This record gives sequence, C-alpha cells and structure tokens, in this order.
Amino acid sequence: MATEQELDMNSAQGISRRELRDLVREQLRVLLDQNNLTGAKALLVPVKAPDIAEAIEGLPETMQALAFRLLPKDDAAEVYEHLESNVQQLLIEDFKRQEVLDIVDKMSPDDRAKLFDELPAKLVRRIVDQLSHAEREATALLLGYEASTAGRIMTPKYISLKEEMTVDDALARIRRLADTTETIYYLYVTDNTRCLTGIVSLRDIVTSHPQQLVSELVTRDVVSVTTDEDQEEVARIIQRYDFLAVPVVDRENRLVGIVTVDDVIDILEEEATKDIYALGGVQAGDDDYFQTNLVTVAQRRVVWLLVLLVTNAVTGAIIRGQDDILKQVVSLASFIPLLIGTGGNVGAQSSTVVIRGLNIDQIRSGPLRVIRREAVAGALLGMMLGTMVCVGAMLFQYPPAVAISVGVSLMAISTLAATAGSVLPFLFQSVGFDPALMSAPFITTAVDMLGVLTYFTVARFMLARFNGG
Amino acid sequence: MATEQELDMNSAQGISRRELRDLVREQLRVLLDQNNLTGAKALLVPVKAPDIAEAIEGLPETMQALAFRLLPKDDAAEVYEHLESNVQQLLIEDFKRQEVLDIVDKMSPDDRAKLFDELPAKLVRRIVDQLSHAEREATALLLGYEASTAGRIMTPKYISLKEEMTVDDALARIRRLADTTETIYYLYVTDNTRCLTGIVSLRDIVTSHPQQLVSELVTRDVVSVTTDEDQEEVARIIQRYDFLAVPVVDRENRLVGIVTVDDVIDILEEEATKDIYALGGVQAGDDDYFQTNLVTVAQRRVVWLLVLLVTNAVTGAIIRGQDDILKQVVSLASFIPLLIGTGGNVGAQSSTVVIRGLNIDQIRSGPLRVIRREAVAGALLGMMLGTMVCVGAMLFQYPPAVAISVGVSLMAISTLAATAGSVLPFLFQSVGFDPALMSAPFITTAVDMLGVLTYFTVARFMLARFNGG
Repeated sequence: MATEQELDMNSAQGISRRELRDLVREQLRVLLDQNNLTGAKALLVPVKAPDIAEAIEGLPETMQALAFRLLPKDDAAEVYEHLESNVQQLLIEDFKRQEVLDIVDKMSPDDRAKLFDELPAKLVRRIVDQLSHAEREATALLLGYEASTAGRIMTPKYISLKEEMTVDDALARIRRLADTTETIYYLYVTDNTRCLTGIVSLRDIVTSHPQQLVSELVTRDVVSVTTDEDQEEVARIIQRYDFLAVPVVDRENRLVGIVTVDDVIDILEEEATKDIYALGGVQAGDDDYFQTNLVTVAQRRVVWLLVLLVTNAVTGAIIRGQDDILKQVVSLASFIPLLIGTGGNVGAQSSTVVIRGLNIDQIRSGPLRVIRREAVAGALLGMMLGTMVCVGAMLFQYPPAVAISVGVSLMAISTLAATAGSVLPFLFQSVGFDPALMSAPFITTAVDMLGVLTYFTVARFMLARFNGG
Repeated sequence: MATEQELDMNSAQGISRRELRDLVREQLRVLLDQNNLTGAKALLVPVKAPDIAEAIEGLPETMQALAFRLLPKDDAAEVYEHLESNVQQLLIEDFKRQEVLDIVDKMSPDDRAKLFDELPAKLVRRIVDQLSHAEREATALLLGYEASTAGRIMTPKYISLKEEMTVDDALARIRRLADTTETIYYLYVTDNTRCLTGIVSLRDIVTSHPQQLVSELVTRDVVSVTTDEDQEEVARIIQRYDFLAVPVVDRENRLVGIVTVDDVIDILEEEATKDIYALGGVQAGDDDYFQTNLVTVAQRRVVWLLVLLVTNAVTGAIIRGQDDILKQVVSLASFIPLLIGTGGNVGAQSSTVVIRGLNIDQIRSGPLRVIRREAVAGALLGMMLGTMVCVGAMLFQYPPAVAISVGVSLMAISTLAATAGSVLPFLFQSVGFDPALMSAPFITTAVDMLGVLTYFTVARFMLARFNGG
C-alpha cells in the first residue's frame, strides 16, 4: 500500500534514473532473498543492460552469480560488458566452462580485449583456445597492439563496400552484416588490397537512388588513424570532426578496424581523471580506484609525498639557517604559512590553466604570450594581496619591518609562482613529459625555497633599516 | 624544391593532423598576403570545416574576415559554427547585414543559441527579427530555456514517425527530411498530441521488410530527458547507454528536441575543465580562458586567494601565540612548512579521488566505507612519513624533543587531513553544493590550524618531558 502510494507520487514528480536504479537493485535483492527466481527474472526484462549491470554490482557477492544467471543468453554478454572488471572476474571464476565461453564469445572484440587484460594469463589462454574461429582471430588482432593505442581499442567489426557496388548492392550487404557489426552508419570503401579508399554514410546510401554507384557517393578525403595512434589522439579527432567513428588503418593503409564514438567518451573521461589525479598528487591506475586495495593506494601516493617531503625539508633547512634573525624577531615565523601557502596557490592556479589548456589543445597562441600573461596576473594578484597583508599586519601590531617584509615578499612570490607555474608545463611538454605529472613538485620547490629566501633577505634588510636607521 | 622534398618526406613518415593544420594556416596567410584570392579559395576546398575554422583563428585579425569571405555560402555556416566565440563576434561586426543573416540562418539552432549568448542583446534582436520563420521559432524555443539545460542545448531538428507508417513510408519521410535534420539514425515515434511513444533506429528501418509497420519495430522503453534537465546529466545518460542521441520532452511528455552525442563530448570536457579549475583554485567562466582579459582573470582567482589568506593569517596567529616556546626552541619553526605542506598534500589527495569519484558517479559503496578507507590510508602514510622525518631530524641533529614532536604531529596531521579530505566533499554534496568548489578551502583551514596546534601542543609536552624529566 505504502509502496504503491510512493510509486504514484514518484511518477507524478518524476524520479531520477539513479533512484530507479536503486529501486531495481533493492527489488532484485528482496526477490533473490526470497528465492523467487521467476519474479526476479521478470523484473529484469524491461531494464537496460547498463542498469542491470549496476544492480548486480550493488548486490552482495554471493548473489551476483545467481542474479547474472537469470539473464537470457543474448542479454548476458551485453550486461557482462558493462560490469566493473572486478565483478567480471568474480563471475568468471564462478561459472562453468561452457557458460563462460558462451558469454565471452558473444562479447564485442574490444570489450573482450579489455577483459583479457584483467584476467590471469592462464585463464585467458584457455578461453581463447575455445573461442569460435572468427572471434579468436578478432581478439588476437587486438591483443597484438599495445594498450591505449587505436589498434587495441578498435573493433574489427565494420562493414566494407566496394566502389563498383550499387546502392542496392550496398543495402543488401548492410542487411546481411547488420547483426554482427558495431555500427552500420558509416561504411568503409576498400579496394582489392583492402586499402581504405573512402567512406560512405548510411545517410548517403538511404537518400540515394538504388542504381547509383558507391563510387559516386564516396567521400575520398577520409580522416583515419594508424593502429599505433594514442587513444587520446583518436578521441580528439572524433571530437573535433563530430564523427560517429574513425577508421583504423595499418602502415600500408589497409583497413583493420574502427573506433566508435561511445568508446571515445570513456577515453576522454579516463584522460580527464588522470589529469585531475596528477594535479591532486595521486598516481592514476587503470583499475577502478575505489576497488583498489589500500596498500596499492598508499604506494601510489607516497612517492609524491616523499618528493614534497624533501622539498619541505630543504625549505626547513633554509629557515634553520635564519636562526639568528628568528630568535631576534620571533613573529617572523607567523608569516611562513601565509607566504608558502599563497605562493603555492598562485602557482597552482597558473599551472592548472596552462596544463588544462595544453591537454585539451586550447592554447593557440605561443608559449611566450601565455607566460607573460600569467606573470602579469601573478604580479597583479601579488600587489593586491601584499598591500592587504602589509596593512593587516600593521593593524595587528606586528613590527613595521615585519609587515613591510611580508608585503614585499608576497608580491615577489606571487609573480615568481605564476611565472614558474606557466613556464614549467611548457618546458616539460617540450621535452616529452606529461606536464600534469611533472610540474607541481618543481613549482612547489621553486616557490617555497625562493619564497622563504626572499622573505628572510627582505626582512634582514628591513630590520637593519628600522633598527639601524 | 625544398618544400617539395619536405612534403615528400612528410608523406613517407606521416605527418600529424596538427602539423597539417599549421601548414594550411601558413599557406593561407601567404596567399592572402599576396592577395592571391583564387589560390586561397582553391587551397581551402579539400579542407574540413573545423580545420578551416582553426586556420582562420590563427590569422591576424585583419585577414580573418577576408579569409572567411572566400568560403562558398554553404560551407560558411559550418565553419562559422566551429569558430571561437570571440572570432565569431569579430566577424559579425565586420559583415554586411545580408551576409550575417545568410550565415546565421544556416546555423543549427543549438549553435545559434550559443552564439546569441555571446552577442550584445541589441544585435541579437535585430538578427532574430530577420531570420526565416522556421529558424526564428527554433531559436526562440531554445532561448526560452535556461542555460546549461537540455532545452537550451537540444536541436529541434529531428525526424518523427507515426506508428501506422510502413517502413517504406518512413524511408520516404527520412529522404525528404534528411537535409534539414541533425541525425537520421534515430527516429522518434510520436502520437497525435506529439507525445513520445517510442524510438526506431535507422538500423531497424533498413533491415526490415518495406511493408512492416513502424509500430512493429518500435522500442517503447525510451530513455528521455526533460527540458530542464542539467546538461551534465544529459551527457551522463548518453555515455551510460552508448546512445547517439537522447530525446528531450516537456512536462507533458511532448517531444521538443534531441541532444546528440557530439555535443555530449564537449559538455563532458567542459565539466571536467570546471572540476580541474575548481581543484586548482580557479573559477571557470563560460568563455575560453585564454581569450579572457587579465582583469577578469585576476578577479576569478583573487577570491580564492583571499579565503586562503584569512586561513593562513589565523594559522599565523596561532604560531604567534606560541612566541614563548618558539623563542626557547627556534628550530621548531623549521618544520612548519613540512607539517602544513604534507597535511595539505594528503588532504588534496583524498579530496581529489573522492570529488572525482562523486562527479563521474563512480562511488558505489556508502560514504562511510570510503571515509574509513581514506582515514586508514592517511594513517598509513602518516606513519611512514612521520617515522622517516623523525629519524631524519635526529640525524640532522635537531633536539630529540623536536624530532619526536614532528614525527607524532605528522601522523596525526596525515590522518586528520585524509579524513577531512574525504568527509567534506560528501558533506557539501549532501547539502547541494558542488564538492569541487567548496571542499579545498575548508580542508586547508582545518588541516593547517589543527595541524599547527597539534604540533605545538605535542612539542610543549615533549620539551617539558625532556627538560623536566
């Protein structure tokens, strides 16, 4: 009764897809708990594969295999493709050999290659040996290319046409192959040596006269990628030209596969996560972070922390070298967090925009213009902050020499930090490093050490002035 | 001669698309410089719209309008859609009224809405008044919805079918409308009140018998979004289900438009940039960062810096309150950068993974599990770093009381930082704030202040021990 009312309310207000997914998972759990398999099976019929996958992931481990077995054979492979890799592995260990083979044989080659990356080599060999001939060939092809290249993420299941076919011939071929190809919306025209000579869209085919030749419709200036192209570059090309897919060719321009737009979205997200992790000082892995064990997590973070520890120790040594003046004016120590903190933040701001600009290919002017811009921005910010802090310090009755030292140092540090933050990413990119990974430790080092040195040098000078003059 | 040789070498080694684009821009500049308009025109014929747009953006401002005028009318609108908004504006001011109208009339409604967002309201009104009736209606529809919603980014140019149509009828309709719609690969089935009742793909149409009814092919369990749905959620749905487009309906379930996958890629990239900027302490604008003037840039950064300035001032005040002990043991000051720095870094690591996990919907377990995990990771890291620093400080002959204080504080600070870094994003999300924007200042505040306090409290205790006992 209460549930019915709730559902009514929901349909009136509209419920989010996320709530719907949670609901399905809960229903599934209850039905399986009651061992009501017919009910559970019926429940899943109208639900889409990605949602079923997520519902299964949310179940207790003991129920996952049970729930998965409820699926009709044809749906099982699609749901399996959408599962997280750790659940995929768990299920495969639970299955009998024939069940595993049926599912893996039905997966698309690119998803299968992804799965094989995660499984123990022994198990992979056993499965590959028993795949159907066509699927084995397709998989072997993909696994022959390096990870994160076009060859590894492509699917060899596309439709090729010949120039001399008519539109009617083409349609007949499309109908025949539609079931086994990932997209039928782009069709690839090849010659007798399987070289790519052009591309035709299903739009062109459908809107043309049945007796027209493919050669009359073909677009010859094809954008293609080679098998060893980096996956991010493949993604950028599809993004740039608003393609649904891009053809992958080998060194002899023979067509070997295509990469489709749905994979591109995931690749770009993966790359964005890598950049974000790098900026946050976390090393990204290929697996799902929240599934990784703690020791791996700690390992991925500790390197970065150790680098900064050394940096900070050097900064500390510089401060220790100023014992004499610190003893004289202890309040100088109060501003160390502020100076280092502001320097770090200004540097992070500059490097963030420059690194992101480089990564999404948004910087169209030369590096010098960008660096000049950042340096000026840093100086502007430094002047504003320096003035405020100087006035603030006077109001809080710090010695004038200290207040002025802080203000002046803050200007210098901001300018320095913004410059370092914009120069270093360009520098690292030009020598072939990923700017997102390399820049932060060097920026922090430069800013912290030079910042503290500047501060104490100015302070020494000011104190001598105020005390001496 | 040299150029020919170079081109030969390039074609042997393969040149990147980026190099190709630079080449086109250079050639275009030279030809325009020589006033060779025929040559320039011929040069652009085989080049794709996004590449022409980028070549034009790279030209000196005085040449941009000239280059743009070389394009045939039909291509001009497409190139114009791909231009950066500042170049779009510049060109529109340069054009005669009729030229402007021709281009804007040919743009797709979603790109036109984006352009109008950037232009002065007066100019927009003048242009809208003179658009063709259909285009004016389409634009008015989109502009009626709020920015960043499904209604604003959709295109009303889709193909709808009726249930009672045959496959042949459908194909005839598709052929008739193909020229004016964004995609013909998804077809939307509506009833007499324009309500969405299902969806048919061109794949279904092409592979079915000509006399079959649309009602036999239709998929009824359609995933749709409402006009006020946030654009990021729209993007996530297309990503999740591997769609090429998603239909947009109003509150009465009437179909009003579709959002296509090519827009989704740009939206997800925009959102990733926003997240990255937020983590780097930069406020993102809707415009291209590298085109924004410096005052705006400084404004977008200064707020964040001011917040941290206050935080740092408070930390400074805490240090000042420890004058007595600092005077006694000046070397305590040496470790302030290290403690604050490590705390900040550990906190940043935890908040980075949690915020990214929340934003890409990757956290599937409850918050408590994630927080516990992060706290343990922080404690682990703290123990490693604390031990190392303690031993290091002894080796460098710091007083043992100082060395032990630093080591103990480092453990406490790391645990605290990782906990704060994971708790706060969840907290901010639960009250409806963007965790990426809100978390960092609070994490820094908590970690810095509590860290310094812990440090001095432990140090006081240790020094009393070592001196007293």
